[in-house]
Amino acid sequence: MLKQQLENVKNSAPLVHNITNYVTVNDCANILLACGGSPIMADDPSDAEEITAICGGLNINIGTLNQRTIPSMLAAGKKANECGHPVLLDPVGAGASSLRTQTAFQLMEEVRFAAIRGNSSEIKTLALGEGTTKGVDADMADAVTEDTLAGSADFARKFAAKTEAIIVITGAIDIISDANTTFAVRNGHPMMSRITGSGCMLSALTAAYLTANPDTPLQACLAAVCAMGLCGERAFERLSSREGSASFRTYLIDEMFNLDGETLERGAKYEIL
Amino acid sequence: MLKQQLENVKNSAPLVHNITNYVTVNDCANILLACGGSPIMADDPSDAEEITAICGGLNINIGTLNQRTIPSMLAAGKKANECGHPVLLDPVGAGASSLRTQTAFQLMEEVRFAAIRGNSSEIKTLALGEGTTKGVDADMADAVTEDTLAGSADFARKFAAKTEAIIVITGAIDIISDANTTFAVRNGHPMMSRITGSGCMLSALTAAYLTANPDTPLQACLAAVCAMGLCGERAFERLSSREGSASFRTYLIDEMFNLDGETLERGAKYEIL
Amino acid sequence: MLKQQLENVKNSAPLVHNITNYVTVNDCANILLACGGSPIMADDPSDAEEITAICGGLNINIGTLNQRTIPSMLAAGKKANECGHPVLLDPVGAGASSLRTQTAFQLMEEVRFAAIRGNSSEIKTLALGEGTTKGVDADMADAVTEDTLAGSADFARKFAAKTEAIIVITGAIDIISDANTTFAVRNGHPMMSRITGSGCMLSALTAAYLTANPDTPLQACLAAVCAMGLCGERAFERLSSREGSASFRTYLIDEMFNLDGETLERGAKYEIL
Repeated sequence: MLKQQLENVKNSAPLVHNITNYVTVNDCANILLACGGSPIMADDPSDAEEITAICGGLNINIGTLNQRTIPSMLAAGKKANECGHPVLLDPVGAGASSLRTQTAFQLMEEVRFAAIRGNSSEIKTLALGEGTTKGVDADMADAVTEDTLAGSADFARKFAAKTEAIIVITGAIDIISDANTTFAVRNGHPMMSRITGSGCMLSALTAAYLTANPDTPLQACLAAVCAMGLCGERAFERLSSREGSASFRTYLIDEMFNLDGETLERGAKYEIL
Repeated sequence: MLKQQLENVKNSAPLVHNITNYVTVNDCANILLACGGSPIMADDPSDAEEITAICGGLNINIGTLNQRTIPSMLAAGKKANECGHPVLLDPVGAGASSLRTQTAFQLMEEVRFAAIRGNSSEIKTLALGEGTTKGVDADMADAVTEDTLAGSADFARKFAAKTEAIIVITGAIDIISDANTTFAVRNGHPMMSRITGSGCMLSALTAAYLTANPDTPLQACLAAVCAMGLCGERAFERLSSREGSASFRTYLIDEMFNLDGETLERGAKYEIL
Repeated sequence: MLKQQLENVKNSAPLVHNITNYVTVNDCANILLACGGSPIMADDPSDAEEITAICGGLNINIGTLNQRTIPSMLAAGKKANECGHPVLLDPVGAGASSLRTQTAFQLMEEVRFAAIRGNSSEIKTLALGEGTTKGVDADMADAVTEDTLAGSADFARKFAAKTEAIIVITGAIDIISDANTTFAVRNGHPMMSRITGSGCMLSALTAAYLTANPDTPLQACLAAVCAMGLCGERAFERLSSREGSASFRTYLIDEMFNLDGETLERGAKYEIL
C-alpha cells in the first residue's frame, strides 16, 4: 500500500508552501526536495496567500511564530481551504506559552486541517483545551508506550472525530487516526530526538504526501510517518563510532533521497489498532 | 583568466553584506567562508545601511521578503551605490507573487545593480515586466537548452543593455551577458536542483567575486558560475551509493573550500556566444 | 574539574531559551542537543517571556537583531533575572553598527548577565563604551596573542569586575575571567573561523553549561570553552584531503555529541593567569 503513496510523491513533485519556524526551515526544504517534492516559503501577509494559491499543499508550523506571521498563517490557511489544498498543522510548543496555545486554537477554528501532527503533549493541549468545554473525553498519557497505547489510540480517534482532521501523534510509538481507522507505527530511532527538526521535517513530508495523495489521506500520513521512521533507522545503521548527531542528520536526509517504494513497503512497521 | 578572479577572492577576503531569505542563509554564509570571503547579515532598516557601509559588496535576495526587510533592501542598496560597492539582485520567486515581482521592479528602479542572477522564469518576469511598456523585445524560452540558446543569449544581451547590469541566467546551461559579451556555461549537475540553496549560494558567491574583482565584473560572474557548477560536478563524483542530497550539499561546500585556480581553469566549460 | 561540569549537563539536560540570529540558529539548536541540553527558540515579545520562564537558562545573541526582537531580548532577560536563570550575552557585531552597539549597552544596563562572550573587538566595544565615561582603564589589544596576553587578561579582569559578569573573550587564545580568577585556554583550531556559527554555538553551549552548573559558573564557562575548542581540534583531525569546511561543521557537532568527561579532562589546555 505505502509504495503507491511514495511513488505518487515522486511522480507528481508536489509543491508545498511552508510557513514554518526559522530554526529548522532549511531541513524542511531539504527533506521536501529529498522525497521528490518541492518547497516554497513565504510568510509575509501580503505574500503568503498568493504563494499558497500556486502550491498544492500547505504546512503551518507555529515554532518561532510572531505577530507578523500569525495573520499569514490564517490567510494562507483559508486560501488553501478555498483552493481545496490539504493543510497540515504542526502545533510546536502548544501548551508551552499562551501565544502558541491561543494561535493553535485560532488556527483550528478558522482553518480546516487535513492533518494535525505533534507530540503527545502538544496534541493533548489542543484536545483538552483551556476550558472544560473544549475537552475531549479520553485519557491521554504523557507518552505513548505499550501500556498506554490503547488509551492513546482512543484519545486520537476521538480527537480526530472532533476535528475532522487526521491526528498524528509522534513519539516512541506513533499513532495515526482518522476516527475510523487507527494505526500504530513502530518505526524510528531515539537518535531522531537528538537533532533539531525531526518533527518539523516529518510535518513537511506529511504535507507533501497528503498533496500527492488526495484520495488516500490516511494512507498518505501513514506512509510519511513510516518513511521518516525507517529513514531514521537506516541513518542510524550507517553511523560509525566517531560519528554523531550531525552525521545522523545528513544520513537521515540522504536516506529519504534514496528511499524507494519497495524498501518502504518492506521496512514499514505498523498495525491497525 | 578565471584563476585570477578566484585568487583575488582568496587574497582580499571580501566582506559581503547579505539581505537574504532565512531558508538558505546558513548555506550562503558557509559558501562565502568556503570561497575565502566573509559574510555579514543585517536586515533591520536601522542596521542594514550601516552594515553595508563597512562591507565591500551587497547581495540582495528577495526570498522570504517581508514588509520590514523591503525598506532595508532599498536603503542598503542605495547606500552600497553611494559607496561604489557592487550590488547583486537575486529575484527569488519574481513572477510567483505580486509582492515579489513588485519588489524586484522597485529595487531595479531605485538601486543600480552590478548583476542580476536568477532562473529563466525569474529573469523573464523582470525583463518582460507587467505592462507592455516595460517589455524587452526578445524571445526568451522557458528553459535554456541547445535549441533555445541563441534566442536566450539575445534576450540576455538586450536585458543587460537595458538594465546596465550583468545578467546571469542559470539552468542546465547558464548564460552570462554584459550586453557586449555573452557566455554560455556548461558546468553543473542536475543534483544541484535537489538541494535548497544552490541558486542562493551562487548569488552570494557571485557577490563575493564581484567585490574582489572590481575591474573585471563580467569575468568575475563567469568565474563564480563556473566555480559553482564545477563544485557541483565534483561533489557529485564523491557520492557513494548510500549517500544522497544532504551529503551532496556537504561536499558542494567542501569542494568550494578546496577549489584552487588551476582546478577552476581546467574544469571550467564555457564559450563565448 | 571540567568532567563534572560536562556530566552535569548530560545528567540534567538543561532547557535553554535562545533569542538568536537566523543565520546560525539551526547550528545552535543542534550543538545544544549534541551536548545533552535542549533548545527552545522564541523571539516574539508576547512569547519570549513565557518561554523563558519554563527554561533553565537564556542565551541572547544580537546577530540579525531587529526592532521586534530587541524588546523580546529585554523582556526575556528581565524575566530570566527574576527567575534566577543564568543569562548569557553574545554581542555579535557590537561596534559594527550603532543599533548593535546601543542594543548591547541597553541589554547590559537592564539585564544582569551571568556571562558575556564575544571576540576581542566586540568585548572592547562594550568595555570602552561610546563616551569616555564608560571607559575601562585597561589596554586591550585587537587580538589575544602570547604578546598581548597579560594586558588582555587584565582588561578582562577589570571588565568582569565592572559588569559582575564572567567575561569570555574568544580567539586564537581564549580568556575567561570572573575578576577573581582568569583562565587562558589554548584549545581550538583555525578551521573554526572558516564556518559560520562557531562563536554562536559556543555561546549556546556556554549557556547550557551555566544552567547545569549553578554553583560553579566560572568552571562552567571554562568547560564549555575547552569543550568547543577540543571538538574543533578533533573534528579537524578527522578531515580527509577532499573534505573541507562543511564536513568540518558536521564533525564538530559529532564530536560534541560523543565528547565525554574523561576526554575533555585529558584534552583541555588551560592555565590560570
